[in-house]
Amino acid sequence: VNIEIITIGREILDGRVIDTNSAFFGQQLTRVGHVPRHFQRVDDIAADILSAFRLAATRARYVLVSGGLGPTSDDITAEVFAKFLGRPLAPHPEAREAVRQAFARIQRPIHDTQWKQAHLPEGVSILPNPNGTAPGFTLTHDGVTWFFMPGVPRELYPMFLDHVLPGIPPDAHFQKWMWMTHFTSEGELQHRLGDIIAALPPELSFFYRTRFPENHLGLSGSCTTPALKKHFAETVHRVSERLGTDVYSEDELLTLERSVGTLAEGRGIFLVSVESCTGGLVAHRLTDMPGASKSYWGSFVTYDNEAKALVAESAGLGDEMRTALERHGAVSEETAGVMARAGAQQCLSKRPGAKVLSVSTTGIAGPDGGSAEKPVGLCFLAVSDGERVLASEKFQARPGLARDQLKLLFSQKALDLLRRQLQA
Amino acid sequence: VNIEIITIGREILDGRVIDTNSAFFGQQLTRVGHVPRHFQRVDDIAADILSAFRLAATRARYVLVSGGLGPTSDDITAEVFAKFLGRPLAPHPEAREAVRQAFARIQRPIHDTQWKQAHLPEGVSILPNPNGTAPGFTLTHDGVTWFFMPGVPRELYPMFLDHVLPGIPPDAHFQKWMWMTHFTSEGELQHRLGDIIAALPPELSFFYRTRFPENHLGLSGSCTTPALKKHFAETVHRVSERLGTDVYSEDELLTLERSVGTLAEGRGIFLVSVESCTGGLVAHRLTDMPGASKSYWGSFVTYDNEAKALVAESAGLGDEMRTALERHGAVSEETAGVMARAGAQQCLSKRPGAKVLSVSTTGIAGPDGGSAEKPVGLCFLAVSDGERVLASEKFQARPGLARDQLKLLFSQKALDLLRRQLQA
Repeated sequence: VNIEIITIGREILDGRVIDTNSAFFGQQLTRVGHVPRHFQRVDDIAADILSAFRLAATRARYVLVSGGLGPTSDDITAEVFAKFLGRPLAPHPEAREAVRQAFARIQRPIHDTQWKQAHLPEGVSILPNPNGTAPGFTLTHDGVTWFFMPGVPRELYPMFLDHVLPGIPPDAHFQKWMWMTHFTSEGELQHRLGDIIAALPPELSFFYRTRFPENHLGLSGSCTTPALKKHFAETVHRVSERLGTDVYSEDELLTLERSVGTLAEGRGIFLVSVESCTGGLVAHRLTDMPGASKSYWGSFVTYDNEAKALVAESAGLGDEMRTALERHGAVSEETAGVMARAGAQQCLSKRPGAKVLSVSTTGIAGPDGGSAEKPVGLCFLAVSDGERVLASEKFQARPGLARDQLKLLFSQKALDLLRRQLQA
Repeated sequence: VNIEIITIGREILDGRVIDTNSAFFGQQLTRVGHVPRHFQRVDDIAADILSAFRLAATRARYVLVSGGLGPTSDDITAEVFAKFLGRPLAPHPEAREAVRQAFARIQRPIHDTQWKQAHLPEGVSILPNPNGTAPGFTLTHDGVTWFFMPGVPRELYPMFLDHVLPGIPPDAHFQKWMWMTHFTSEGELQHRLGDIIAALPPELSFFYRTRFPENHLGLSGSCTTPALKKHFAETVHRVSERLGTDVYSEDELLTLERSVGTLAEGRGIFLVSVESCTGGLVAHRLTDMPGASKSYWGSFVTYDNEAKALVAESAGLGDEMRTALERHGAVSEETAGVMARAGAQQCLSKRPGAKVLSVSTTGIAGPDGGSAEKPVGLCFLAVSDGERVLASEKFQARPGLARDQLKLLFSQKALDLLRRQLQA
């Protein structure tokens, strides 16, 4: 089954926007056993879009088009598709109703220009867009099924999942399994799983996906025989056993922060963070989950050493913090330990007897501030229940990472230290 | 000048890797006045790559190809290009020397398979690759100039900048101007600038870019005559005047958080945040800038009401916070005000007499927790110097936004309230 993807819009050609939609298409189609065969990206130029449609029609069974459905003058996808079909562009009653409802939903008046989004080639069917004003549409013509979607990911993703993907028959034998890991390089995974990889029949294959700072490992293939199904299941089992707690999730939708939040909630534990080098990123990630308040209490971003001292003093740990800062410096195991304990104590002062876990980070995110002894990329982490430090870690990132990457990596380390403690 | 981009590799079709190379090409080419006209992405399949080359040869003056230059069996770009040219693939002496040096640099032995990277179509010239083992190559053939580069960004970027971009003549007349705005929809910009847009000659054009929650407006065009240059400059002036303080930057690299940090640093002001609904995101954004410690002191993520009370108590505002919480609730102008004052006071307790600005957020990021009176998307913000509340805002986001979008939007509001206060 040949699937072709066409993304339309100058902003993806001139680099203003990084095209993540086509990666999304690829990932989702792979889940049902298809790899898109052809891909074109075109400017908002009618002749170019028309050429792209004509080329796709010669070689694809399904064509997924995104972009150019909006109300502005450079949104010409529907107009060009009408020309391609040789059909008129006309007000589409169902699309007009969809536009009307979309504006009612966001409580905005409809300007005349907005009705353009309901002018479609004759004969197409509407694809609902609950997150935007431009409906998508679809048509099967001369043996090719066309799907037109908006370019905005927030609108495109649900439309694709709910109304496009179900229209493309999956490979019924296709199976896939994912392991979400981090701090394991592709090379290391290869090394640890070499014998399992070598034993794999050609119908099954592993794939790697790097989403800094994570590595995701996948197994997929078309299991057309009982023997292949059996081999697939056994391989899944062996890999899970081999990777152990280095896997934080076997569910692509369960992020590390969500898995930490869910574990804490299930165990009635309240989470606190005391952050220096991560600058609030741990807190931000812990509060990204709906219902975060069930497991998350609050955080202290103690960026300046005065802030570290202040939080420690309020927790009766002022002397210990002073000693740690003077003797070992802000970036040290000792400071991280007092920070974590102070955070938990702050929560306990308001909630005596509660179960609390506090995680701290103190390190050097760079680009400046590093030294030979404490280089950029060094981070100390600790987890405490208020009484004592339950877990701590000294982490040195590889050279060459940028500040935002280091913040992300340190926050990942902090969440993972919490996860391991929660699972202990 | 028609420029075509071809990226090769299954990993970008099936979504394992997000293709950022083409955005990089677009950004760099736009800087010298070119927007790539055509783009194809193809699988590691010889027939598909050959078709892509043939199509590009019919319409492009410059073709930039990335991917498929490595030593493995699915790296077939050079082989297919040789077939396209009708020339033999042969050991290329200069390329062999480049491979030899590359392996010497990383102190690894050269396996036989590695020499494949030096088998190139006859007549091509080498493009040096200081960051990898596969050299790039270039050839002008039948009026089309071809550039072949590796797919790995770390290898591709310097090769492109040093050896490809200089080979493409820039449009010397090209001019571009950007305005970074937020809380102005594309429709609203159109409405406010309608007369200026209507007066634009066809050589110049506006473009929009939505990076939620921001909108960026751009003006660009090839100013080949003095009249066009004058019109361009006048338009820039009129737009800047019209949009006023709704523009936070006219420099694409100056993000809102960076502009806030720079303003604070210049005025010797220390920044503090006290965050409820943003959950640390304001702190995270303020610490994303290198050298953040020059203007950023610390934050309190007071997610639980106990945390709000605790921070207020330490600042001697315990009674006021109790009253605000009891009478008006956590999501209220009053609570936001006490939060902001408490944050500034915490900093001042350690740094008496300092200039401090503290920003607070308290709202409902959803998806649950909303009511008729206080719906999801409501947020109160305040800025204080410790003494009093200098600025405050009640903000209601439009319906339909997800939790992560609301957190981002609220954090944007907070940073913008700081910016306006710093510029006041």
